[in-house]
Amino acid sequence: MSETFYVVPVEQHNSLVVAAYAARQFNAEECQAAAKFSAYASWHGIRTHNAIKALHLDDHFGSKSQGCVPGAVIEKRETAFAASQIWNANKKLGQATAYAAMDEAITLADRYGIGQVSVDNAFHYLWGGGYVMEAAQKGYIAYTNCTAALAEVVPFMGKFPTLGTNPHSWGFPTTEAIGFPLVIDWATSVVAMGRVQQFQREGAQLPPDAAVDADGKMTTDPSKVAALSTFGKHKGYGLSIINEIVAALIGGSLPTIRSRWGQANGEKHTPVFYFQVIHPDAMSGNRFAKGRTQTENIKAVLEDIVGHGNDDCMLPGQVEANSAARSRQHDGLLFSAAEIAAFNEVAAQCGQEPWDQTKLKVVQ
Amino acid sequence: MSETFYVVPVEQHNSLVVAAYAARQFNAEECQAAAKFSAYASWHGIRTHNAIKALHLDDHFGSKSQGCVPGAVIEKRETAFAASQIWNANKKLGQATAYAAMDEAITLADRYGIGQVSVDNAFHYLWGGGYVMEAAQKGYIAYTNCTAALAEVVPFMGKFPTLGTNPHSWGFPTTEAIGFPLVIDWATSVVAMGRVQQFQREGAQLPPDAAVDADGKMTTDPSKVAALSTFGKHKGYGLSIINEIVAALIGGSLPTIRSRWGQANGEKHTPVFYFQVIHPDAMSGNRFAKGRTQTENIKAVLEDIVGHGNDDCMLPGQVEANSAARSRQHDGLLFSAAEIAAFNEVAAQCGQEPWDQTKLKVVQ
Repeated sequence: MSETFYVVPVEQHNSLVVAAYAARQFNAEECQAAAKFSAYASWHGIRTHNAIKALHLDDHFGSKSQGCVPGAVIEKRETAFAASQIWNANKKLGQATAYAAMDEAITLADRYGIGQVSVDNAFHYLWGGGYVMEAAQKGYIAYTNCTAALAEVVPFMGKFPTLGTNPHSWGFPTTEAIGFPLVIDWATSVVAMGRVQQFQREGAQLPPDAAVDADGKMTTDPSKVAALSTFGKHKGYGLSIINEIVAALIGGSLPTIRSRWGQANGEKHTPVFYFQVIHPDAMSGNRFAKGRTQTENIKAVLEDIVGHGNDDCMLPGQVEANSAARSRQHDGLLFSAAEIAAFNEVAAQCGQEPWDQTKLKVVQ
Repeated sequence: MSETFYVVPVEQHNSLVVAAYAARQFNAEECQAAAKFSAYASWHGIRTHNAIKALHLDDHFGSKSQGCVPGAVIEKRETAFAASQIWNANKKLGQATAYAAMDEAITLADRYGIGQVSVDNAFHYLWGGGYVMEAAQKGYIAYTNCTAALAEVVPFMGKFPTLGTNPHSWGFPTTEAIGFPLVIDWATSVVAMGRVQQFQREGAQLPPDAAVDADGKMTTDPSKVAALSTFGKHKGYGLSIINEIVAALIGGSLPTIRSRWGQANGEKHTPVFYFQVIHPDAMSGNRFAKGRTQTENIKAVLEDIVGHGNDDCMLPGQVEANSAARSRQHDGLLFSAAEIAAFNEVAAQCGQEPWDQTKLKVVQ
């Protein structure tokens, strides 16, 4: 990385994020969840889901639109199924809802070995990887998926976008074995629509399988893009469909009108979340080769995978772990000059003092 | 399809398969499971996992090797986690083990909303899609993964194969909504090693991202293939790692020595299975738009996805459903002349009468 970064202490960052959300009428719990989550994302180098992006999302789809209701109270539906909970989030802030749902799924997993929380009428939770990573750091196997804001992706062989970029996120408790949790976390499109716009600004060509034109033909020309493609042809398409069918089972409505509040026709416009947690002891046959413990076995298996001369390979979660090490080393969150400027706009909007760039530690 | 097929009644097929497995000392329950499963695969047009392939697998890795033990008894480990079971399959036939595990997961889901069965010391179960499809036809959401026989796939950016083709299979209860269960089921490699050999025989080139040579460079030349690649770059790699880490949590050993019984060094050589079932009522928020039922909502969402001019799109599971319709129409299993010949070799080996090809109904 040759870019210049400025180090913002976590407390300084969180103080501004809390103020920004409070100015939008979110309650104290929601403000704390928003600050904690964006600090966690930035700590792990997730620049696409920092506080700036979270606030932009709230501008476009959230409390300034009809997608998110500050102070909303989650309703828990009665169910006879002991390891399952079904929530109506009533459009509560996604970060607060997701933290609560993952905590509940952990409680269920502690008792039943596996637990699930289905959440209808949700707002966005930003970066699914963050929730499963934290659960994995606590020692659990965790999974989440959600339906993305807009239908921007064509089904395989299709022309018209009817699917979200629908991400999946899995976390595994491997910190003791290898120093960080394995986190597998990505959208089911090859790229996000934001990348297409970036490529267009930069005059660059897209990867060959990332997008289609209005006729459903693959295009690498950002100016001709009508919709995105799923990764891995029918395989990524299948993974994207999973989020839509899970959402349909829970309570989600037609993907093509999601987040499009103008088109009121009796359909729902809210995304849906799904969370699942497994306790590692509830999977262990406890008969590991050579008398290894479960942790030692995980370590041996992962060393086998990236051994044998596979020196260029990284394990999923390694990049985020490297970013976290860098944040720890500098004792703060690393932001670019442009990001600092964006935070200072946020500060001006909510009546806070801007950050004095000259007083922030600089790292290359 | 312009190929000629011969229609074999299910009873005639099953009678031969039962005899073939009985000749290998499998017990009655195992023989029935093997026959039922291969009939189900052939009924749905799954030619890569018919009875011929199942018996070849048993030849190479199973009861004729050290991988599978006819008549083995499954041990169930005591666990305090009510929605979870942990089994030691003791190398029992994969199809019998998988049917029993899926049944158990269904029982757990009926009670807890979600249930899981982890299976250590397994033999292969052939086609994961078959188990989740049947569970979906019974009205459940079902998932399974397993570690594939051999490490034939390189990790992303790697040179040396340390991962299996590690499949994932999901089934969803959509029969009432759209006439068949959605089944998402594929290996995490772009192609199987058998396809590489087929391309080599036919003098054809591989897809550009399917395999690597001995230096880890992508190659389309089947004769230069040293190992397979995961689909979708790091995304398919992440999905393949999931099977290995789930296996490592349960009791699986190093992937590179899996099924390689000659390399006895205190490591285990067996694959691992994981099964999970969810009851659809345990996810339903019961607040579907326009007063729809859950089934009506699923139908509306799926129609939205393949609507809007997306006429060339198929839903995952449609191909298998079309094959099943064809089998139903002809009232039997469709096999090619080469497949009939292979079945007749099996018949000769286990002392059964060969099938008289001239008496079988022919379809084009």
